[in-house]
Amino acid sequence: MEHPENNKAYKGLKVNDGVERLSSVNPYLSQRRVKRAALLSVDDYVQGILRGDVMILSRAVTLVESLLPEHQVVAQEIIERLLPYSGKSLRVGITGVPGAGKSTSIDAFGMHILQERGGKLAVLAVDPSSERSKGSILGDKTRMERLSARADAFIRPSASAGSLGGVARKTRETIILCEAAGYDTVFVETVGVGQSETAVCSMVDFFLLLQIAGAGDELQGIKRGIMEMADGIVINKADGANKEEAQRAAVHYRNALQLFPMPQSGIRPQVLTYSGFYDIGIKEVWDMIYDYIAKVKSNGAFEKRRNSQAKYWMYETINEQLRNRFYNACGVEEQLVHFEKELLDGRITSFAAASKMLEFYDSLIEK
Amino acid sequence: MEHPENNKAYKGLKVNDGVERLSSVNPYLSQRRVKRAALLSVDDYVQGILRGDVMILSRAVTLVESLLPEHQVVAQEIIERLLPYSGKSLRVGITGVPGAGKSTSIDAFGMHILQERGGKLAVLAVDPSSERSKGSILGDKTRMERLSARADAFIRPSASAGSLGGVARKTRETIILCEAAGYDTVFVETVGVGQSETAVCSMVDFFLLLQIAGAGDELQGIKRGIMEMADGIVINKADGANKEEAQRAAVHYRNALQLFPMPQSGIRPQVLTYSGFYDIGIKEVWDMIYDYIAKVKSNGAFEKRRNSQAKYWMYETINEQLRNRFYNACGVEEQLVHFEKELLDGRITSFAAASKMLEFYDSLIEK
Repeated sequence: MEHPENNKAYKGLKVNDGVERLSSVNPYLSQRRVKRAALLSVDDYVQGILRGDVMILSRAVTLVESLLPEHQVVAQEIIERLLPYSGKSLRVGITGVPGAGKSTSIDAFGMHILQERGGKLAVLAVDPSSERSKGSILGDKTRMERLSARADAFIRPSASAGSLGGVARKTRETIILCEAAGYDTVFVETVGVGQSETAVCSMVDFFLLLQIAGAGDELQGIKRGIMEMADGIVINKADGANKEEAQRAAVHYRNALQLFPMPQSGIRPQVLTYSGFYDIGIKEVWDMIYDYIAKVKSNGAFEKRRNSQAKYWMYETINEQLRNRFYNACGVEEQLVHFEKELLDGRITSFAAASKMLEFYDSLIEK
Repeated sequence: MEHPENNKAYKGLKVNDGVERLSSVNPYLSQRRVKRAALLSVDDYVQGILRGDVMILSRAVTLVESLLPEHQVVAQEIIERLLPYSGKSLRVGITGVPGAGKSTSIDAFGMHILQERGGKLAVLAVDPSSERSKGSILGDKTRMERLSARADAFIRPSASAGSLGGVARKTRETIILCEAAGYDTVFVETVGVGQSETAVCSMVDFFLLLQIAGAGDELQGIKRGIMEMADGIVINKADGANKEEAQRAAVHYRNALQLFPMPQSGIRPQVLTYSGFYDIGIKEVWDMIYDYIAKVKSNGAFEKRRNSQAKYWMYETINEQLRNRFYNACGVEEQLVHFEKELLDGRITSFAAASKMLEFYDSLIEK
């Protein structure tokens, strides 16, 4: 194994940065362990991940999530080397409003998969900090009681800081690491209230929307358009006295889905009921998902979706970076405030304001 | 009146350009008229529009639509001067799949407004050329038989060339001109199959979705998300044997709308049936719209929507321009082709490809 000191990409790393970073993520790491962690080479990471070492996988994810440029250099090298080993998992996005029972459902879904299909399961989350207050995700691993006790399940909460684009990038890169480490099912969880659904939908093979019965106020929180992104809708808490209401809700959703156009997959989303808490109907939900995957793999839609996702993220990243550079350029914000006022006072059109802003930006670049 | 020769902004204009442009738009213009048109000053345009001269309004719209930079300079000056006289119309967006009976409906709606409320009506369209083949819009004025014969109705087809952003800009600027010319109702029509709905929805006070009965295949063409943008849904062809089916469809849509969150206006979209051809239920549709407008004007949502639209278009234009500059830069396309291939072959991640593209772009700017 190459000595870390000889590793070119590694040279910029200060040991102290590593110590602070790692110990803040895991307070139980002893100082000795942290030192060892900080001294891992890219090769150590790659080999460790390929043999499925959870501790090393976890540290690599920490590097991916790090905001330090030195960490990013190492992370990118690790990802590049692991890329050929990635892509083979089934990626499932799971969303639902707070109160839909996401943690209980993921626990039940995960246990079903591990017991029926075997293999290893990774549970990740996309949860940009701005959306935190609206519903904590994976904040408490213990909410997934059974999964968190298993060695074949890797549960990782969302990176806590950064824009949606940043968090999405980190999650996509974490998927690559997990796949290289042999996880054959990856859940990507998100809370169903913000913009992160589009991001999650664009990185998974199947996007599952969890709902609960009652078409009234409790559904108000669902963002417009989420229903149309779903590859399947499942109504939770279909147990006991709730069962009938859940079935009525399912009919409601089925009717509503009729109004939407056929998805590109060529497969109409199904609506099923289940109970995460009482383990009812879990098998049916997953049979539906496996059936869907078998169909899209045979009709070519699976590969097409993955390819268009790869392109989507390249273009998204370019566009996001172009915007970031503009809006973060020195003086742009003050100018925007000025032109917004001119605009609302009716002294300038939106288009004239935009061209003046771009002229200002160009004058910055020329300097 | 200032002589055109003395008009600074006008100096760049070549008479021949004007002749070609105007005569291609209106083959019935005599050569003499064209010459006079080409010699109009900004002041002529402004005064002509303010006194409601349809011919001059029409020529000003032609300038707005022109791709020649010299015309754009004049157009921007006209718009700037007319801006204080704009904003007072009721702007209604109208969309629906081909076959929903848009032209007949607009004819009936327009006649109702002119007869019941008086005033003047402008009918514009957003129809980027790329969407042309999917359903011609206003291509044939004669489809609006009654309106096209009236002096108090101004019907203008969409600019035929350009990107959606470009066409949207032109339509928004045309709205300003029409408002300054005293049109108190402006319809903006679009075909319900593409991306132009978001654009239209972002420039009107009320977005009306025309549908026809039958929740089957004929609705497949509706773009995802359009239903959720609608401030009201109306089912056309509710006449004779079709009436019951139309009413059933209305119930269907009402149920589906229950699943969507309350719009920002605080007013749930209503679903009504009507017949454009037989003039049935037209008054009810417009009472619904006027009622909506009265409510949003009193609860502040009207002004809020207009303000956020003005900002939306400023930011949209900035972002579109940033993208255009990048994607049109010399050599960028070849690089994108290269990285797309690398991406699909699994040799690079989307994010690494994006940063390499941005590095390439920076090297272009530095040169």
